[in-house]
Amino acid sequence: MVTIVVDAMGSDAYPVPDIIGSVTAAREYAVQIILVGDENIIRPILDSQKPGNLPIQVVHTPEMLTMQDKGMSLVLKARRPNSKNSMAVGLDLVKSGIADAFVTAGNTGAASVSSYFRLGTIPGIDRPALAPVFPTAKGSCIVLDVGANPDVKPNNLLQFAIMGKVYTERVRGVTNPKIGLVSNGEEAGKGNQLVKEAYPLLASSQLNFIGNVEGKEVIGGEVDVAVTDGFTGNVMLKTAEAVAQLLVDKIKENIKSGDFLTQLGGLLIKRSMGKIKKFMDPSEEGAAPLLGVNGLVFIGHGRSDANAIKNAIRVAKQAVDSNILDSIRDAIQVSLQ
Amino acid sequence: MVTIVVDAMGSDAYPVPDIIGSVTAAREYAVQIILVGDENIIRPILDSQKPGNLPIQVVHTPEMLTMQDKGMSLVLKARRPNSKNSMAVGLDLVKSGIADAFVTAGNTGAASVSSYFRLGTIPGIDRPALAPVFPTAKGSCIVLDVGANPDVKPNNLLQFAIMGKVYTERVRGVTNPKIGLVSNGEEAGKGNQLVKEAYPLLASSQLNFIGNVEGKEVIGGEVDVAVTDGFTGNVMLKTAEAVAQLLVDKIKENIKSGDFLTQLGGLLIKRSMGKIKKFMDPSEEGAAPLLGVNGLVFIGHGRSDANAIKNAIRVAKQAVDSNILDSIRDAIQVSLQ
Repeated sequence: MVTIVVDAMGSDAYPVPDIIGSVTAAREYAVQIILVGDENIIRPILDSQKPGNLPIQVVHTPEMLTMQDKGMSLVLKARRPNSKNSMAVGLDLVKSGIADAFVTAGNTGAASVSSYFRLGTIPGIDRPALAPVFPTAKGSCIVLDVGANPDVKPNNLLQFAIMGKVYTERVRGVTNPKIGLVSNGEEAGKGNQLVKEAYPLLASSQLNFIGNVEGKEVIGGEVDVAVTDGFTGNVMLKTAEAVAQLLVDKIKENIKSGDFLTQLGGLLIKRSMGKIKKFMDPSEEGAAPLLGVNGLVFIGHGRSDANAIKNAIRVAKQAVDSNILDSIRDAIQVSLQ
Repeated sequence: MVTIVVDAMGSDAYPVPDIIGSVTAAREYAVQIILVGDENIIRPILDSQKPGNLPIQVVHTPEMLTMQDKGMSLVLKARRPNSKNSMAVGLDLVKSGIADAFVTAGNTGAASVSSYFRLGTIPGIDRPALAPVFPTAKGSCIVLDVGANPDVKPNNLLQFAIMGKVYTERVRGVTNPKIGLVSNGEEAGKGNQLVKEAYPLLASSQLNFIGNVEGKEVIGGEVDVAVTDGFTGNVMLKTAEAVAQLLVDKIKENIKSGDFLTQLGGLLIKRSMGKIKKFMDPSEEGAAPLLGVNGLVFIGHGRSDANAIKNAIRVAKQAVDSNILDSIRDAIQVSLQ
């Protein structure tokens, strides 16, 4: 049975959403769960969910990483062999083969750095990339990297593209996914120095590379995989989230301050607006894979609720079932030949 | 009287929106207009607007730049002293002092390159920056650069910040504007190499620098000026536009495909949604200033309608009235001392 280790100390509202999401996943999917975190606070919440015979274990960890963990002190905590924080212990369970994947809604930087040091990277991959799902006009796509690497080299973007292709094909079920390179204009030749140097690498690869793409093409659903450096990807992600939030807030505000009929209209479209909210909601996808580390890691939004955690576990299980790590290893080896 | 030269061959639907916007501006504001473009097609449209005694002149140009103009051929057309395209002729009217500002809704790249070569830069400024207005939760801010320079140096970002401050203070009427540096995290120390090197320059300047900002802070209205390289800024702008468009489309689609009451609700909030559209509409601001060139240039969206052109002329007039060029020159000189 697939075993997923879940960071019970991950989400902003930890450990309740993390535990409830895990219990629901154990109920709905054929997965075994290991909760890592402070057993003293996990047990009563877990018991309140009446897990019965569900395959859920708790591994006690006396420490946790928080948003305050960064810089050199984070590196030390992430590297130290005997680290006892929930991320380190959870990742070690993956490394030792006891668990198949690690899911956390904790500090993204801490999770990325810990994964990098405890699992290492897949041979041929220099840097891991975080690959969240963006909703688009035609469904969704993944964008990578969105933050693990603020500065990259052209070859890193090629590696991101290969990993994105494999993940999209194997886990997201898209055959021969369309790959785009995020740029400040669609034409070949547009871009900063990095993009200009990465373009020919992508164009001469075996990938289904459709060229440079702007936000319009990414959000418009013209690609399945949008490749970019972690700085640009992060700015894209945060901007997209902020604009969506602003628009929804403004619409609510305008309806609320409107006349009686406008307010009535607002009530009537409430269900419809709920669909929009669901469409824009990252919790539907649960978490983003950190591709390129030598083990399966999924990192969720700090705001993850129980539903997001449950969905993250579902996606992690899909990744395990589809043997994505081997596929990435193979694809990278082929690209190096 | 302030004289604005308007590129009649600019907008995607040229020359009708460009001409009607110009006539309306001449009627509403105390400005003199020079239309540059093909007189044979301008005259009948201009006459149909019954301009009477309005101070509108036409300067005939036999050529125009289009979206196809790029690369070296664009550089040549932009530089050649005897170029007869509407942008070159319009910019020469500014350079010679006959006009006070140039407004175009044409190819942004062509307009930027032409402005750079025909007007040069303000002493102390290495590169011009395009600075459009972004709607925010608290009103609006400017983001610069959004495309003139895909690759910049830390010192360029400091220059962008100084120009953004002066423009925001003098033209947008914000005292001591808050300046943010776009990054992949708010804390000092976050960022790519460029941001890490630019941060101390901004922090030790006389500017009201509030530090690094993410999309959340920019769109949330926490800054008046968001400084970034042209690659990142362009990706931000295109992503923000695309997400806003996608959300509005999805809401419409959900309402249209909903039941009778949902559709009724959609009708009732129509006016409210119109306000949202207006809030997100770049035509309210008309055009973005190209700051740093030695003359006033405003570049509008290709999709500009007559209202956008009219508003661009209004903003250009404000920039002339507030003597923005001298203010930027002074601020840059002070920063170099």
